[in-house]
Amino acid sequence: MSAPLEFYFDFYSPYGYFASYKIDAIAARHGRTVNWHPILLGPAFKAVGSKPLLEIPLVGEYSAHDFKRTARLEGVPFIMPPTFPGATLAAARAFYWANSIDSETAKTLAKAFYKAAFAEGRDLFDLNVVAELTTQVGFNADEMLAAIQTDAIKNKLKQAVQDSLDKGVFGSPFVIVDGEKFWGNDRLTQVDQWLATGGW
Amino acid sequence: MSAPLEFYFDFYSPYGYFASYKIDAIAARHGRTVNWHPILLGPAFKAVGSKPLLEIPLVGEYSAHDFKRTARLEGVPFIMPPTFPGATLAAARAFYWANSIDSETAKTLAKAFYKAAFAEGRDLFDLNVVAELTTQVGFNADEMLAAIQTDAIKNKLKQAVQDSLDKGVFGSPFVIVDGEKFWGNDRLTQVDQWLATGGW
Repeated sequence: MSAPLEFYFDFYSPYGYFASYKIDAIAARHGRTVNWHPILLGPAFKAVGSKPLLEIPLVGEYSAHDFKRTARLEGVPFIMPPTFPGATLAAARAFYWANSIDSETAKTLAKAFYKAAFAEGRDLFDLNVVAELTTQVGFNADEMLAAIQTDAIKNKLKQAVQDSLDKGVFGSPFVIVDGEKFWGNDRLTQVDQWLATGGW
Repeated sequence: MSAPLEFYFDFYSPYGYFASYKIDAIAARHGRTVNWHPILLGPAFKAVGSKPLLEIPLVGEYSAHDFKRTARLEGVPFIMPPTFPGATLAAARAFYWANSIDSETAKTLAKAFYKAAFAEGRDLFDLNVVAELTTQVGFNADEMLAAIQTDAIKNKLKQAVQDSLDKGVFGSPFVIVDGEKFWGNDRLTQVDQWLATGGW
């Protein structure tokens, strides 16, 4: 069995959301699995001197249009969550708590967070939403709410963000395949091609 | 005959170079032509608060690797010109001078500039290089060298840059198809798809 793909994303990244529908299937076609790593893009924006797409002149207008166009092309629902953009700390911490219990269900929870945000336009800053989805995938929401206040879980997210920066991750989605880096939802076709050919 | 595609690019943009090999063929498959618009990205970088890719932490390292990986994938030669990055004023002005005489040969000249820069690693800041390529495609290099010093030609480039900003162009390559904007060499497959389907 070859090494898993490393998939980095921010829960409030539309392009990460689009990628979340496809990345596991791409890996599975080539006998691979995927490690999911929710991160917060704030520190990466600081490192590269950038900011959320919608806040950038010209780029913002283009991106707002492109989010919708990409959704139509990929055949998935799309709506902007009310608190976008922002640092989805609670959701990311809930993921790392869930991941310490069961990684497959944690991935299901990540997909539920993404769908709540971008398919239903729900607010991931609302702890009730995070709790509801946690319950829905089979975890205990009260345990989650307690855990995400602990230093242990807070540090897991901090460490994940730092690890991503150390590996050169500066955007979402970002996929590392056998050390090879691919940035952006547009590049998933190249990830597929890389896995199929062993690289070029 | 439907409207031409509008193709914006910077002569010192590697992704613009990759696109320059493909854009005319994509348009031709759908009975379209392409208007080529060399611009300078400096004003766009200023508008969006960005800078040349290689000068950005993390992004620079990724991009330097991705230029070479993209070239291998697309089967074209690639080498960095010695003065990269920079504002290729003379080459862009030479294009607009040539374009005022014959637009098809001007396009041939643009392709010659791109190949000199990124297939041969030649310096587009060297007026001898710009002159040699101008002669090579059949224009008079002395006339070009005189023309690019005139306000008339300088203003053509200024106007082209301003027009591109007014249209929302902030990167290279950037293609506008029937008012629909596509940014990046990665998006040429979507340009093709948009032309084939009439949009989605």
